[in-house]
Amino acid sequence: MGKKLTKRDEDYSKWYNELVVRADLAENSGVRGCMVIKPYGFAIWEKMQAGLDRMFKETGHENAYFPLFIPKSYLSKEASHVEGFAKECAVVTHYRLKNAEDGSGIIVDPDAKLEEELIVRPTSETIIWDTYRRWIQSYRDLPLLINQWANVVRWEMRTRLFLRTSEFLWQEGHTAHATEKEAIDEAEMIMDLYADFAENHMAMPVIKGVKTESERFAGAVETYCIEALMQDGKALQAGTSHFLGQNFAKAFDVKFATKEGKQEYVWATSWGVSTRLMGALVMTHSDDHGLVLPPKLAPIQVVIVPIYKGLDQLEAISEKVEPLAKELRAKGFSVKYDNRDTQKPGFKFNEYELKGVPVRLAIGQRDMENGTYEIARRDTFEKETVPMDEVVPKIEFLMEDIQKNIYTKAFDYRQQHITEVDSYEEFKKVLEEKGGFIAAHWDGTVTTEDKIKEETKATIRCIPIEGDTTAGHCMVTGEPSVRRVLFAKAY
Amino acid sequence: MGKKLTKRDEDYSKWYNELVVRADLAENSGVRGCMVIKPYGFAIWEKMQAGLDRMFKETGHENAYFPLFIPKSYLSKEASHVEGFAKECAVVTHYRLKNAEDGSGIIVDPDAKLEEELIVRPTSETIIWDTYRRWIQSYRDLPLLINQWANVVRWEMRTRLFLRTSEFLWQEGHTAHATEKEAIDEAEMIMDLYADFAENHMAMPVIKGVKTESERFAGAVETYCIEALMQDGKALQAGTSHFLGQNFAKAFDVKFATKEGKQEYVWATSWGVSTRLMGALVMTHSDDHGLVLPPKLAPIQVVIVPIYKGLDQLEAISEKVEPLAKELRAKGFSVKYDNRDTQKPGFKFNEYELKGVPVRLAIGQRDMENGTYEIARRDTFEKETVPMDEVVPKIEFLMEDIQKNIYTKAFDYRQQHITEVDSYEEFKKVLEEKGGFIAAHWDGTVTTEDKIKEETKATIRCIPIEGDTTAGHCMVTGEPSVRRVLFAKAY
Repeated sequence: MGKKLTKRDEDYSKWYNELVVRADLAENSGVRGCMVIKPYGFAIWEKMQAGLDRMFKETGHENAYFPLFIPKSYLSKEASHVEGFAKECAVVTHYRLKNAEDGSGIIVDPDAKLEEELIVRPTSETIIWDTYRRWIQSYRDLPLLINQWANVVRWEMRTRLFLRTSEFLWQEGHTAHATEKEAIDEAEMIMDLYADFAENHMAMPVIKGVKTESERFAGAVETYCIEALMQDGKALQAGTSHFLGQNFAKAFDVKFATKEGKQEYVWATSWGVSTRLMGALVMTHSDDHGLVLPPKLAPIQVVIVPIYKGLDQLEAISEKVEPLAKELRAKGFSVKYDNRDTQKPGFKFNEYELKGVPVRLAIGQRDMENGTYEIARRDTFEKETVPMDEVVPKIEFLMEDIQKNIYTKAFDYRQQHITEVDSYEEFKKVLEEKGGFIAAHWDGTVTTEDKIKEETKATIRCIPIEGDTTAGHCMVTGEPSVRRVLFAKAY
Repeated sequence: MGKKLTKRDEDYSKWYNELVVRADLAENSGVRGCMVIKPYGFAIWEKMQAGLDRMFKETGHENAYFPLFIPKSYLSKEASHVEGFAKECAVVTHYRLKNAEDGSGIIVDPDAKLEEELIVRPTSETIIWDTYRRWIQSYRDLPLLINQWANVVRWEMRTRLFLRTSEFLWQEGHTAHATEKEAIDEAEMIMDLYADFAENHMAMPVIKGVKTESERFAGAVETYCIEALMQDGKALQAGTSHFLGQNFAKAFDVKFATKEGKQEYVWATSWGVSTRLMGALVMTHSDDHGLVLPPKLAPIQVVIVPIYKGLDQLEAISEKVEPLAKELRAKGFSVKYDNRDTQKPGFKFNEYELKGVPVRLAIGQRDMENGTYEIARRDTFEKETVPMDEVVPKIEFLMEDIQKNIYTKAFDYRQQHITEVDSYEEFKKVLEEKGGFIAAHWDGTVTTEDKIKEETKATIRCIPIEGDTTAGHCMVTGEPSVRRVLFAKAY
């Protein structure tokens, strides 16, 4: 507390880093690139998990758990996959420590070297498809719809809390299907599910699309994605869903007997979202005062702060507050009554503002006399004095209204930051001066994509599924383009 | 399916291994010592997690997440702790793979050696207390009550599914307190919470006690435990809660300012239960036909199997079954209506018996005519024909009755297998012929404990908290003993 947050327009990046730490979401640990997710941040992640997990189960998926370690030889079985992950992985080479003979301390025991090195999973396709070979024999075993909640490790040189950490938490779905169409349908259904979650739980508008070849997942035939826009005009990939074709089935020899008795390779998808969503949530809604949380994900939805002098007044206030808190909890709201006597109301107001609690109730002597509460909403800072018997419906209204309002605000910002351009000059100008998504024509080649990336740092975020599909000419080469794609600088 | 399970009295160990795999709980993976937890097994673990998580939160704990990796130097800071874990840990030494220059494949990149090796956490005291140093300044920051759900790795040479695996899932609580008494109270409260969970959710009776010095957790001042008895007469440690004194606070220099402004070291506890509980659950209740699951943890509580010829009959049955399934689900029961036409009823009956579904409903033509269902309970195999309008209350009754009945059965077995002995000869005889817990006097020395362990493989499972506290004389040395302790062979 105390010191004010850096403002967004002074230094967006510094604002983010400060906010994540000061709002008690996460902090760096003593282990390079690995974060500690603090209780308040973890409570938000738990709500995300619960929402997603319910949606996965409702669409027929089951959870399971696969090993943390992947033998080096497994990773190598799918050629483009190992290419994609070999450069950034944690390698276990030994299984024992011992006391150094010269008394210099604890050392790795050279006699305990593994025959084959183990990689800490950067993603689990290989270990899972090695397992699916045993699980899948016949069309009766399909579809196989499995999800795993797990930690994964990708060795990152430059890390940022939630956005890019060497270890992160995620879910990874891995499904197996009898036909190509079924697998593609699954991958698309999951993209829709992720978009639904982003928009309706996180109040974060997203654009659905597919990745270009060079941005595809290592081992995928098609990568579907949802892309969000942060308040600094940079895009953030919020979730991906991959149609893997038969690549992993072939690498791990997973065949099934069709109804007609033929042996065929299985079709696959994989898909995931991670604690990166926490970073996206922070950057989509928060302001210079701190976090702004959507009611659906807020660990505390309503905080009640008593304003009093002396314990007699506090006691009288508590008598009014406790039945209200009870009533709200019975309706499923998460309510905190902060009656600490170690902190002043102003301090508490700042703390809950910083932590993004959607609604704050305050009750002081005048309210006690008038039978009222002061209700303040975090998103707009509007305050209102409300008679006690109207508090519950007011809060019910606010929970929905805040959820809607912050979505609309983010949606409007996003819409204002999709710019159509027709020349490369204009592209560079908009990218520099305004940021956001730029809808431009592109000739479909990796060469042009690379040139733009190198010269401007913008990448093709996706080829959108919806929207304008008019053909045109590439802004760089003038070659034909089937439709506009979305460029942006990205996290 | 098909082949019958090995019987318990033929080969208990083989029965267990077969059952875990065939009931779809878990299987070995291609990674030495690491298991795959299959969807059905994971669904049981999720129910355990949900039950425990609720209990932790109700007692004021919050979840957080700490890094997977522990720098070697951290592990070394608490002397007895590193002693306990150094011999069985996975060590990360490199952070990159590369293509071998001779084209022989993917190798560890020798240029990507870590400056300091990282240990995959075998438990998280060290990384957490390194964090707590930053979180704890004053008595206002205490108590700090944190839990983590995580995977941990202890390199095991001989592994068994759930009971002893190199990687396992667990929760680990880590709390910090201002006074010794508060920390001891916490450690004891958690032992009681674990016992409550074991008895009321798992239907598994346990004995609460403390460990002897030589069985204590590496770094603890006192280890509290709950001990269960398996059907083969071997004990299983089902959960431990450690009072850590100021050992970790001193090793990581975690001090707090008292109300009076003095600097003092913090008092600590840690406590955990793991996927080992899955093994305990299987071995406590299951029989020669398969799993027996307590209703509170069963992923499917009621299965409904239609017995029919032709699709017309199936359709008529489904019309009866679906409203019933809906009603039961509305009451919170997990119901599966198995209308697969690829399997015969007999096959389904065997499958759900193997998987331990507590209650099976069958409905055939005669039931359709008479307006009845056949209800079979898994624990006793009792069958009953019940009029349709009595099915719901019957199931409500059975859910409670099966939960109670399997607890009572396990409790009676356990009580019959606590034997008081007064001589070492008798001890060896009972251990050999009957097994179970043996209550005997012991002189309190490590020497005697070691001698007994070496000669009989029995260890002191705990010094019970409750029960007979009469003094006596050690069965081995004749020296004074303050009270009987419990010996057993153990998992």
